[in-house]
Amino acid sequence: MFEAAELGRKISREDFDALAPALRTELLELQQQLRGADFPVIIVFAGVDGAGKNETVNLINEWMDPRWIETRAYGAASDEEAERPPFWRFWRDLPPKGKIGLFLSSWYHAPLIDRVQGRLTPAELDEALAPILRFEKTLADEGALILKFWMHLSQPAQKKRLKSLEKDPLTAWQVSETDWKHYEQYDKFLAAAERIIMQTSKGHAPWRIVEGADQRYRSAVVLETLKAAIGSHLAARSAARKVDAELRDESRDNGSAVTAALPPQPSILSSLDMTVALDPALYAQALQEQRARLALLYRRAIETRLSTVLVFEGWDAAGKGGTIRRLTNALNARDYQVIPIAAPTEEERAHHYLWRFWRHLARAGRVTVFDRSWYGRVLVERVEGFCSGEAWRRAYGEINDFEQQLTGHGIVLCKFWLHITAEEQLARFTARGEIDYKKWKLTEEDWRNREKWGLYEQAVNDMVERTSTHNAPWTLVEANSKPHARVKVMRTVADALEAALGAKKK
Amino acid sequence: MFEAAELGRKISREDFDALAPALRTELLELQQQLRGADFPVIIVFAGVDGAGKNETVNLINEWMDPRWIETRAYGAASDEEAERPPFWRFWRDLPPKGKIGLFLSSWYHAPLIDRVQGRLTPAELDEALAPILRFEKTLADEGALILKFWMHLSQPAQKKRLKSLEKDPLTAWQVSETDWKHYEQYDKFLAAAERIIMQTSKGHAPWRIVEGADQRYRSAVVLETLKAAIGSHLAARSAARKVDAELRDESRDNGSAVTAALPPQPSILSSLDMTVALDPALYAQALQEQRARLALLYRRAIETRLSTVLVFEGWDAAGKGGTIRRLTNALNARDYQVIPIAAPTEEERAHHYLWRFWRHLARAGRVTVFDRSWYGRVLVERVEGFCSGEAWRRAYGEINDFEQQLTGHGIVLCKFWLHITAEEQLARFTARGEIDYKKWKLTEEDWRNREKWGLYEQAVNDMVERTSTHNAPWTLVEANSKPHARVKVMRTVADALEAALGAKKK
Repeated sequence: MFEAAELGRKISREDFDALAPALRTELLELQQQLRGADFPVIIVFAGVDGAGKNETVNLINEWMDPRWIETRAYGAASDEEAERPPFWRFWRDLPPKGKIGLFLSSWYHAPLIDRVQGRLTPAELDEALAPILRFEKTLADEGALILKFWMHLSQPAQKKRLKSLEKDPLTAWQVSETDWKHYEQYDKFLAAAERIIMQTSKGHAPWRIVEGADQRYRSAVVLETLKAAIGSHLAARSAARKVDAELRDESRDNGSAVTAALPPQPSILSSLDMTVALDPALYAQALQEQRARLALLYRRAIETRLSTVLVFEGWDAAGKGGTIRRLTNALNARDYQVIPIAAPTEEERAHHYLWRFWRHLARAGRVTVFDRSWYGRVLVERVEGFCSGEAWRRAYGEINDFEQQLTGHGIVLCKFWLHITAEEQLARFTARGEIDYKKWKLTEEDWRNREKWGLYEQAVNDMVERTSTHNAPWTLVEANSKPHARVKVMRTVADALEAALGAKKK
Repeated sequence: MFEAAELGRKISREDFDALAPALRTELLELQQQLRGADFPVIIVFAGVDGAGKNETVNLINEWMDPRWIETRAYGAASDEEAERPPFWRFWRDLPPKGKIGLFLSSWYHAPLIDRVQGRLTPAELDEALAPILRFEKTLADEGALILKFWMHLSQPAQKKRLKSLEKDPLTAWQVSETDWKHYEQYDKFLAAAERIIMQTSKGHAPWRIVEGADQRYRSAVVLETLKAAIGSHLAARSAARKVDAELRDESRDNGSAVTAALPPQPSILSSLDMTVALDPALYAQALQEQRARLALLYRRAIETRLSTVLVFEGWDAAGKGGTIRRLTNALNARDYQVIPIAAPTEEERAHHYLWRFWRHLARAGRVTVFDRSWYGRVLVERVEGFCSGEAWRRAYGEINDFEQQLTGHGIVLCKFWLHITAEEQLARFTARGEIDYKKWKLTEEDWRNREKWGLYEQAVNDMVERTSTHNAPWTLVEANSKPHARVKVMRTVADALEAALGAKKK
């Protein structure tokens, strides 16, 4: 695989000086166009130490407008980072649309080094690459341009390069003991790299192997590749948008067409017993009990650094707010955060739709409550046509993957759908209209959503079918009775927490 | 995940009879359209025993034109199958374009059962799903419509269903002891199924969970889904073809644009020392030695059932045919097969481009020699524009995956590029033109190909860079000297074989 990058390719100073000015101008022009584009550019650098990763990153920053470039490199995880799922730090650093992100020692670094040093078997390496594949795929599916450069040096070339860096007092600092250690493990290093490149070179995120011995050659290859890729991605995205529009309502997985063709069927919501209620006399006591239980459990959760994420979805006026308040009453204000999810901000719109949820993940031991959530994509965005059919259908898998990263990190995740009947909603809307201090809660939009009850019901049904999993199950809450709903939610959270604390102790 | 398929959904006889005639007519009409389409339909059925997998397959065959439907079910691997890589049997059964393939106990069967019975850990299950993901992805990338149905029954419903099948003497045979054994392991079964569905439900190959308790309901869901999916895939493919044409020359991974922008660089071919030759006096003896060595090694390979696959690529007139003949001279005619690869046949064109290579894989202990190969996709098809840029760029990964399945199955794989200089080729062409019995070998096409020497050189370079891997390396053969080339090839094969036999012994 690396033979083609050990050929002694080089460019003379004269040749380089001849091509540089035009290339530089073109790159700057493309960067201008990119600023108005609907995608980010993500560039990963990896490779043999001394093959010019850092120098190339510096050159890109020098030649292009650095205000639209973000450069990131990763060392050992910080405390902050270690308390979240491993990909949290990469998500938070993703460039927004229109910008270029340069990544050094990126998500490939740990798997590569772990394999070289024998901490991973080849099969475990593949396991470690799976989340990388999903990460890059979900970014590319949302439009990101992803390029990955493997900067290569033969072993003799690496030795020569490290020696020459060491000799010059100005560059000696660049050569660490780690570099020499890697040099000793050159063969293992290349074997691991070959496996990684083979597994992760995809059409939507290709690796490009660059011979790194000659500075001018490698610079020209990287920059010309960048130029060609940005140019053609701009063209491809504009063509793709046309087709998207054409195909918006077409899909092989057309659940609603099928449903419409059949006689009406019970949905997962219609199967709930909506007559359950809690005697008001018992309510106060039950609430008190669960609150005490939660308070106790949360003290232990904080001690053991067990985090909780709670998701609340439900019909308008189903009582999400009231339920969340009853629950958080049991907690210390510094230990929880309620994140109300409305339409995304401008900054959020410039990122992948999951980015705004990743950034809200709290540190270890905390409770994060999402009042509406990432499920917006398969609920409101689906029903209102805010995203393409392809996008919301794909979202089930992306959401499952996201939640697996949470639960895989040990986070307790509970998801609640607060269900009320259409009649109950009408009654609550009407009542709101009559009480002055509640009037503000009732908007035109609520009435419009109500007309789409059937579409939402289908969407909820599909959502539960696709995303209720063993580690991240949905709890459907009969919420015509607010007391019942509140106590059921609190008990479910307490049960989940108790189970997790028990499992943690063992 | 399965809650939404335990709701007691059903359709009355009257309702079903009302929708059946139109549905049936529409399906037949779609099948007609499908016959002219450029993609196959691949439908996988899996699920709880007794949930109607077989009945549904029968119904599809009854309602639609069975001449354009192929139904396959898999049990334990046959001798024939066990001697090839595991996916060989699925590849050979794939439906051609325009046909529908129905798969029972498909590629999902073994991982599911192995997980239920504890032969796979969850991580190993994911490992086992990786080749399935790649298999379905490569089929979908070539246009296949893939649908997967999980037919579901709750545990009580399954019990009821198995009991009722057993009671009727006409259906009692359908219930085996295995079915009851699976019933006992219901919870494990569903946990494994959930993991499989989560990992493998993709936009290009979605799972659809179908409540299986009511025969009419499940039939209607499957058939309506089929109808909607085929209809929209026909539409989507025709839209995609338009964009393909637009984007044919666009790509983010535009290697040749980059190369064109830089001063000429050495290629992996130009770095070969083309002056090496073998003294004719030594040639006869060297040939004799290697032939004897190969003959001996192959006797042992057949005994130990070690298979070999040899790939020959190279310039026109580089001497592939002569080299292959010298090599096969050492073998017994019944033990090897030379597969000359020219333009695909009509039948081959109706399949995935890799299908015709899968089908030629020989049984254990045999030698298969490909005179040209699957590398046509990234050589002639790339250079001549016979496939889209997206397709040949994607092919590197597909080829690596294919070859990994070969070497992973223990097959010895050697790949040779026979290299001659442009001058040597001209001399050989001219000589051919002058010798009557060799004239037929020289065609107009050979001269046309020669004009594209530079493009082919770039393509060969990229091919070696992307597909020369530890387990399946390329050997570049300096073939200006035929004696040298022949001996080098034979020695390389013998070395590889010796190493593999040595490894096998240990």
